[in-house]
Amino acid sequence: MINGAPGKSISVRDRGLTYGDGLFETIAVRHGKPRFIDYHIERLSAGCQRLNIPRPTEIIDEVRQIAAGCAFGSVKIILTRGVGARSYAPPERPTPTRIIGLTAAQPPSGDVYESGVAVRFCRATISTNPALAGMKTLGRLDQVMARSEWQDVHINEGLMCAEDGRVICGTMTNLFFVHDGNLRTPDLARCGISGVMRRVVIERAGLCGMDCAEVDIYPEDLRGAKEIFLTNSLIGIWPVSQLEDSPLEIGSITRRLMTELVKVGVAECAV
Amino acid sequence: MINGAPGKSISVRDRGLTYGDGLFETIAVRHGKPRFIDYHIERLSAGCQRLNIPRPTEIIDEVRQIAAGCAFGSVKIILTRGVGARSYAPPERPTPTRIIGLTAAQPPSGDVYESGVAVRFCRATISTNPALAGMKTLGRLDQVMARSEWQDVHINEGLMCAEDGRVICGTMTNLFFVHDGNLRTPDLARCGISGVMRRVVIERAGLCGMDCAEVDIYPEDLRGAKEIFLTNSLIGIWPVSQLEDSPLEIGSITRRLMTELVKVGVAECAV
Repeated sequence: MINGAPGKSISVRDRGLTYGDGLFETIAVRHGKPRFIDYHIERLSAGCQRLNIPRPTEIIDEVRQIAAGCAFGSVKIILTRGVGARSYAPPERPTPTRIIGLTAAQPPSGDVYESGVAVRFCRATISTNPALAGMKTLGRLDQVMARSEWQDVHINEGLMCAEDGRVICGTMTNLFFVHDGNLRTPDLARCGISGVMRRVVIERAGLCGMDCAEVDIYPEDLRGAKEIFLTNSLIGIWPVSQLEDSPLEIGSITRRLMTELVKVGVAECAV
Repeated sequence: MINGAPGKSISVRDRGLTYGDGLFETIAVRHGKPRFIDYHIERLSAGCQRLNIPRPTEIIDEVRQIAAGCAFGSVKIILTRGVGARSYAPPERPTPTRIIGLTAAQPPSGDVYESGVAVRFCRATISTNPALAGMKTLGRLDQVMARSEWQDVHINEGLMCAEDGRVICGTMTNLFFVHDGNLRTPDLARCGISGVMRRVVIERAGLCGMDCAEVDIYPEDLRGAKEIFLTNSLIGIWPVSQLEDSPLEIGSITRRLMTELVKVGVAECAV
């Protein structure tokens, strides 16, 4: 659906294509409902405000409508600044393009939730720019390059570092590890995407009396960690059971947070 | 023209839109010919190699063909990895999308070449990532944000710094200044676009016996500079006559390089 009407193509002059001038959201759909829709719309709105793109108010209703018939899947929203002249300068009165699409899927097998995922470090670095940090902008070439480093289907995710060596995220996930009974996750002030499931996990952890510190994290911190897990809106929590060549146990805090997520609708985390 | 056929729209699943997974070139057209086409294709090819996107060999011929009827204007090439599934992982055998479009224009008045341009510093920073540095990728939101900082038509360009304070480029130009009779230009190993006109200028300067050092440049270096100029494929050289509130004289080295550019077809630099 494009701007409220059926459609599958956009203008080659759309600034989403020409400059990556836009944002997106990928929202889990369960039993006909978009999950954590408020958080997704909040992040999208915050991004629109920073980029000065008007946020079409129809989006929530359209997402709900398109999700209604779907038992299990996801809705992707792409919002661009719309068609523009050949200039970086944004049009004075942009007419944003909103693209909303549904992908039905099969519920995942419980395997990875039960036995954990294998993770590697990527060589490709993630871009640093405080002006864009946190937003889910259309420019995701960093992630494409990182994800193209491996084909081995037994590797579920790759971790990306900034140029200065700090670990920031997975190609499609946010990263947490357990330290002295509390959580640590990379600080995203300079790069990375502020994930919706990351936010949910931090909130649920807080309700369980756990603190989550957003800090600089280096590969050696992870190598010494007892529990590591990854988060993503479509996934919930993936416990990490292997980091490069080192096996990791799935610990009780990771399990507890997975149980917490099940309570707020992330049923796939039930094991 | 899209993949050799007439067309004005692309799939919403094209990775150029969804992930900024592609490159572009903007090539000046003069008297029916694309200027410095070899250099543009060389940069595009180098980018394709780094991103592992196959470069369609038809592009040069198509650019020449589309430019043929145009006295003054530009051709823009957009090359994406093509349509793909909803995953950062590139398709194993991508079918790239190539979009080639012509924009006719009026030759610029000689004013800015004669009296110089006014330049400001932008607050918006440019992304740092050695993995992408130098390439003209589709992700140009940095430039969009920087360019949206001013509407004053008397300001011709804004300079962008990296997070660490180094000056990297203008929103649509590369930057040079004169130091002790030689040129200095920002080192682009970590961010910025390696401009075609930048390359031409460095080469022409070399033929004139001038050295050009690619170094770290800070705002204070520019504030102490005697001559500053900007380059861009569609512009040639813009001499800077005002940096923020400080007037600058257009010096003899800038003028000499403009004359050199005229010799290789950048007629707009004649004053």
